[in-house]
Amino acid sequence: MTQSAEMLETYPADLGQIDRDKLARCIDECFTCAQTCTACADACLSEDMVAELTKCVRTDLDCADLCATTGNVLSRHTGYDANLTKVLLEACELACKACGDECARHAEQHEHCRICAETCRRCEQACRDLRSSLG
Amino acid sequence: MTQSAEMLETYPADLGQIDRDKLARCIDECFTCAQTCTACADACLSEDMVAELTKCVRTDLDCADLCATTGNVLSRHTGYDANLTKVLLEACELACKACGDECARHAEQHEHCRICAETCRRCEQACRDLRSSLG
Amino acid sequence: MTQSAEMLETYPADLGQIDRDKLARCIDECFTCAQTCTACADACLSEDMVAELTKCVRTDLDCADLCATTGNVLSRHTGYDANLTKVLLEACELACKACGDECARHAEQHEHCRICAETCRRCEQACRDLRSSLG
Amino acid sequence: MTQSAEMLETYPADLGQIDRDKLARCIDECFTCAQTCTACADACLSEDMVAELTKCVRTDLDCADLCATTGNVLSRHTGYDANLTKVLLEACELACKACGDECARHAEQHEHCRICAETCRRCEQACRDLRSSLG
Repeated sequence: MTQSAEMLETYPADLGQIDRDKLARCIDECFTCAQTCTACADACLSEDMVAELTKCVRTDLDCADLCATTGNVLSRHTGYDANLTKVLLEACELACKACGDECARHAEQHEHCRICAETCRRCEQACRDLRSSLG
Repeated sequence: MTQSAEMLETYPADLGQIDRDKLARCIDECFTCAQTCTACADACLSEDMVAELTKCVRTDLDCADLCATTGNVLSRHTGYDANLTKVLLEACELACKACGDECARHAEQHEHCRICAETCRRCEQACRDLRSSLG
Repeated sequence: MTQSAEMLETYPADLGQIDRDKLARCIDECFTCAQTCTACADACLSEDMVAELTKCVRTDLDCADLCATTGNVLSRHTGYDANLTKVLLEACELACKACGDECARHAEQHEHCRICAETCRRCEQACRDLRSSLG
Repeated sequence: MTQSAEMLETYPADLGQIDRDKLARCIDECFTCAQTCTACADACLSEDMVAELTKCVRTDLDCADLCATTGNVLSRHTGYDANLTKVLLEACELACKACGDECARHAEQHEHCRICAETCRRCEQACRDLRSSLG
């Protein structure tokens, strides 16, 4: 059990019908993806071919912002708003898809892009799995 | 002309078909709304009746996060992604609507909620106006 | 009176001895600087000479993060912690100084760096003025 | 090896004299602490005795902001600024200390505060260890 899952157990009110495993998984992937995208953007800046990686930096920065915000919103349960959660998850999936696609184009040349692409795919899937379970 | 509008003028590449006035307006409202929601959440914590304001604090925190992220994404133009922008604007509108509705319920008792409700309405409208213009 | 100053007026408890004008000014400069640095980082990515601007992008990103966090912490007054506030302001001043210095080196070539350098200088000064007033 | 440590291995330029284990550890603790503090603030809002937990919510929010920003800055290595890093780590330690102390006061009553206090202590120590190693 990860720490975000432990924290879910301590929530003093009703968490509702939400699938706790999918929720904890999605929170963890969001925070991991935020860190990885921040690091990938910076690694791109130190590549000799940075001029060919500017779109990659931008998708990294957007994805880091979206994942951080999604991770925060999913960590709150008081006054839960299913509609906002679902549209935010959709936006996060789009950011992960864009960043994963862009990083995948450089995955063979840059190890940071390879890891980042895989992380974005996992986060996108975790968001989609959670969103599907919300009905 | 606000500073965010000035910065748009300095962007060295093509901004595309985007309506610059609506874009600058939306960026400004997002940053103002982020600050106001952060301050409103804290003011709620210092009210005697804080126990009746917990949902308000939560919607404030979500709205602050969404507005900060939306303001950041809208401040980037390199590798622009219309689809992500539109879904993120929609999520931001939902967060502003939820927070504006919740704050409006306390607007007569708490001046911070009155100002915050108005700010959320303006930000929601600015997001919608920009989103409509994106086609 | 800016909106952050208006929000200070609505705070329901005692704000203490803090200089409200310097506080509101500092909050405003932090949010403006966060937006400007985010936009400057992106504008740098679209310059032909991006390879010479990578340090500038990095200082922009750090400064945007520091200013956003400082603006948030300064927007909270419940359980005020003078010591944390002062060290955080010092960190924000360092980030603004580093970004202002770096952008100033490109101010004649890039209008976004010129505006960003000036904004960082103003924010650095507003942080220092507030910090001095905290005793 | 955690993913942040893996990302350090992929950085294409020189990381300098920095202790990679301490750096990766600190990044991980910052992101974990940011998530935990966000969840703890929300759990406090759902406690019956929320009126006695308002200072705890505030220290949680500050600590979440500081940890997120510190985690981001530590994830960047291009144009490394030792002075900023050290002062930011010091600010993060203060935020973790304040939040850890406040949560520790409620640790016996609230499991979320117990976990959060421990997490803040670990993050504070990881920041201090890294800062000491920076010379």
